[in-house]
Amino acid sequence: MTRVSIDLNADLGEGFGRWTLTDDEQLLSVVTSANVACGFHAGDAATMRRVCALAAERGVRIGAQVSYRDLAGFGRRAMDVPAAELAAEVAYQIGALEVFARAAGATVAYVKPHGALYNRVVRDAEQAAAVVSGVLLASPDLPVLGLPGSRLHEAAAAAGLPVVGEAFGDRAYRADGTLLPRGQEGAVLHDPTEVVERSVSMARFGTVGAHCGSPVAVRARSLCLHGDTPGAVELAHRVRSALESAGVRVEAFA
Amino acid sequence: MTRVSIDLNADLGEGFGRWTLTDDEQLLSVVTSANVACGFHAGDAATMRRVCALAAERGVRIGAQVSYRDLAGFGRRAMDVPAAELAAEVAYQIGALEVFARAAGATVAYVKPHGALYNRVVRDAEQAAAVVSGVLLASPDLPVLGLPGSRLHEAAAAAGLPVVGEAFGDRAYRADGTLLPRGQEGAVLHDPTEVVERSVSMARFGTVGAHCGSPVAVRARSLCLHGDTPGAVELAHRVRSALESAGVRVEAFA
Amino acid sequence: MTRVSIDLNADLGEGFGRWTLTDDEQLLSVVTSANVACGFHAGDAATMRRVCALAAERGVRIGAQVSYRDLAGFGRRAMDVPAAELAAEVAYQIGALEVFARAAGATVAYVKPHGALYNRVVRDAEQAAAVVSGVLLASPDLPVLGLPGSRLHEAAAAAGLPVVGEAFGDRAYRADGTLLPRGQEGAVLHDPTEVVERSVSMARFGTVGAHCGSPVAVRARSLCLHGDTPGAVELAHRVRSALESAGVRVEAFA
Amino acid sequence: MTRVSIDLNADLGEGFGRWTLTDDEQLLSVVTSANVACGFHAGDAATMRRVCALAAERGVRIGAQVSYRDLAGFGRRAMDVPAAELAAEVAYQIGALEVFARAAGATVAYVKPHGALYNRVVRDAEQAAAVVSGVLLASPDLPVLGLPGSRLHEAAAAAGLPVVGEAFGDRAYRADGTLLPRGQEGAVLHDPTEVVERSVSMARFGTVGAHCGSPVAVRARSLCLHGDTPGAVELAHRVRSALESAGVRVEAFA
Repeated sequence: MTRVSIDLNADLGEGFGRWTLTDDEQLLSVVTSANVACGFHAGDAATMRRVCALAAERGVRIGAQVSYRDLAGFGRRAMDVPAAELAAEVAYQIGALEVFARAAGATVAYVKPHGALYNRVVRDAEQAAAVVSGVLLASPDLPVLGLPGSRLHEAAAAAGLPVVGEAFGDRAYRADGTLLPRGQEGAVLHDPTEVVERSVSMARFGTVGAHCGSPVAVRARSLCLHGDTPGAVELAHRVRSALESAGVRVEAFA
Repeated sequence: MTRVSIDLNADLGEGFGRWTLTDDEQLLSVVTSANVACGFHAGDAATMRRVCALAAERGVRIGAQVSYRDLAGFGRRAMDVPAAELAAEVAYQIGALEVFARAAGATVAYVKPHGALYNRVVRDAEQAAAVVSGVLLASPDLPVLGLPGSRLHEAAAAAGLPVVGEAFGDRAYRADGTLLPRGQEGAVLHDPTEVVERSVSMARFGTVGAHCGSPVAVRARSLCLHGDTPGAVELAHRVRSALESAGVRVEAFA
Repeated sequence: MTRVSIDLNADLGEGFGRWTLTDDEQLLSVVTSANVACGFHAGDAATMRRVCALAAERGVRIGAQVSYRDLAGFGRRAMDVPAAELAAEVAYQIGALEVFARAAGATVAYVKPHGALYNRVVRDAEQAAAVVSGVLLASPDLPVLGLPGSRLHEAAAAAGLPVVGEAFGDRAYRADGTLLPRGQEGAVLHDPTEVVERSVSMARFGTVGAHCGSPVAVRARSLCLHGDTPGAVELAHRVRSALESAGVRVEAFA
Repeated sequence: MTRVSIDLNADLGEGFGRWTLTDDEQLLSVVTSANVACGFHAGDAATMRRVCALAAERGVRIGAQVSYRDLAGFGRRAMDVPAAELAAEVAYQIGALEVFARAAGATVAYVKPHGALYNRVVRDAEQAAAVVSGVLLASPDLPVLGLPGSRLHEAAAAAGLPVVGEAFGDRAYRADGTLLPRGQEGAVLHDPTEVVERSVSMARFGTVGAHCGSPVAVRARSLCLHGDTPGAVELAHRVRSALESAGVRVEAFA
């Protein structure tokens, strides 16, 4: 019997110059996939180099965390970027990261949109297609990590790119398997024990209790851990330990 | 008998978003090597993509024109960037351009520093070494285009990188083969006929009349054409025609 | 009897560093109000200083052309900027311009949003309120130049700020007095003679032929001239001459 | 008899968007003068607004901390900015801050260069003159806070601007009253007790033990506290308490 396995991904390298945000060293001892900021919402070149070197050293997979061009807003403000520009910007970021992955003896193994772009391409087919075009400029077979059922995943699959779905141990789900929007009561879970239990449930059984109570199917090959909050590293370790104790193999997605 | 040959290089893609500067289409019908701006002093992602596609279509070699991070100053202001940052920034720019070269079926075939960085690494050994480190992060054998005898070329050669020297048809040389600094009387030549004659002389015989009158040896495998002045395209065509009429083969450096 | 008068406004100072766009000197010999770019979509500090000095010298009124923070997109990409950030950014831009207006012996006499922000605040009440908050941070009585009937004008008027409506000689109007959206057939008029005639009609009679043919009321105290297209300066001069020949006094709004 | 008094200044508002650096609230309970970052090395508009509001509320004087345009390098990389550009950039930053000071019922009461610009204008007469030109664009009588004996202070005094000298409790001084350069052994003092004692000595007696041992005169009307290191706030409180216990009045410079 094949043991169940799950990937753990987190955003890394989200400092810029003098400023730091994520505890990259600590997170790299927990996650199996590192979403490395590529300079558009965070992440200067020296940080990208350092994070890639550390990730390669520890066998953590490197992914390009691509964003709108918006340092002032940390990529969290939706932007009406024309498709051709957005595609080129996505490719630019992937290429910039490739240098550092390659220099570390690794490769850029997947792409994940960040922040407002991540949210936008859940429903916006045009920007989703633009992101996919950008990925294709860089490579014909780079996996796209994102929300299952998103327009991004539809466009990626249609273009022949592998898609990898992710789930969130700290977010409430609705009965139809979609996320309860941030801002709504109870959308984000703060109790570590609950986050750990839900993470294990999603990894082992592919289900989780929905906001209304009934179990809902959440099929994901990766769990997203948040790295920029107080206690984030500690929580990430607890999630990983609980997964391993429950017999789930924690490893990068195939 | 081997015919004499010379490469013609020019800076391209030096617009940014709404702004344009160089007439990329026209210049790509003259030059054999395109120094493509990579986003740090000029050059947005969509422009980089377009210029790479055009260059590949016309068989023009693509080079990474790397710069200090300084859009407001167009990379023309010397900056005391620490070596590790500078190296990473150089690699970042090369990587970003590689995506678009590759998507066009080409490769980034060389690196040339821009503006204040170009001038700085003529004498500054530390920044020269940093630029070379950056190139090495991207590739172990990428040629470095620059001023013959510069610290940059010394550092590149010491690191095993091929070096390609360039000369300027529109600049006055001193008796020792160095350039008369800009700002000095007569440093920049404006008479098209003179520029054409000097270009041909340097390509055919490896010599040119120095500022003081005597001929001076200027060995270069590439001539740099300026693309951002009025009449630049016209002058570039005249230089190329004169070279060909004089039996010089105009082709990318080997 | 009071003679009819009209203000002519245009965007100026829209270069950035090495790049230029608008012919500021020429436009300043035509317009009565200069919408000066403040550094967020275009306009570096040295350009702002120069344009303010020229404007003051010629008695042209200086306005702050405020924008989303988006140099790469020239402020033409709508952004979901949170209200508090947007308000502060608007105030920041006004303050920066004030220094140069004051140094030239003038003042910032009005505010006009640029590009995507201009379009957004026609209908988006939240961003309109944020822009007004930003203006109020800078001054309690700064006129707001914009589209008559826009959410921006509603919010400005509600806050006690003077509002000044503008009209476009080169845009088609619908029967209800709103602009035919760009992208629709015939939205932008290219025939100079027609643009001149419509400008005069709007200034003299407050009406213009709508897209469907019938005359429509377009009440505006200012006409917006475009400065960044070929022939823009020539057309601007023609509009001004025609207005003056028709007995319209061309002067900054009261 | 007039009691001795001293001003305490610190850099504030040095975050940018998502990133924070200085504990502005805490520092504003200690210092009497706040050097507020103006957006060129750090400091977004919303942060500037917030810091000005807090400073005004607590009666802390607001100063413009002006910098090279260099977010990626936090203004710590010397740049060869042409004088006219630098002057305009300094004025731009002061103007932007003025809006928020004014909205808070206060004013920009002085100017202090940041980082690499601060160091550069100690000896570079051209850039010092450019900074002074920038200040004069904004105001004819704005005090300039800086190193006593610097080219900046010479240029400011020659232009009729008030100059305010500052001293550093945590830096070693040479026998001639200049700072031992960073990078040299013992240039920065880390023992809190020593920093406190030296601060009190400089405030009370205008002398401090030089690196070689003998007392040296250090006349300063302000002491600079560093706010971006661990323990900075705690140390700042200790310095202030010790000054007050020693009978020194801690208040903004006259």
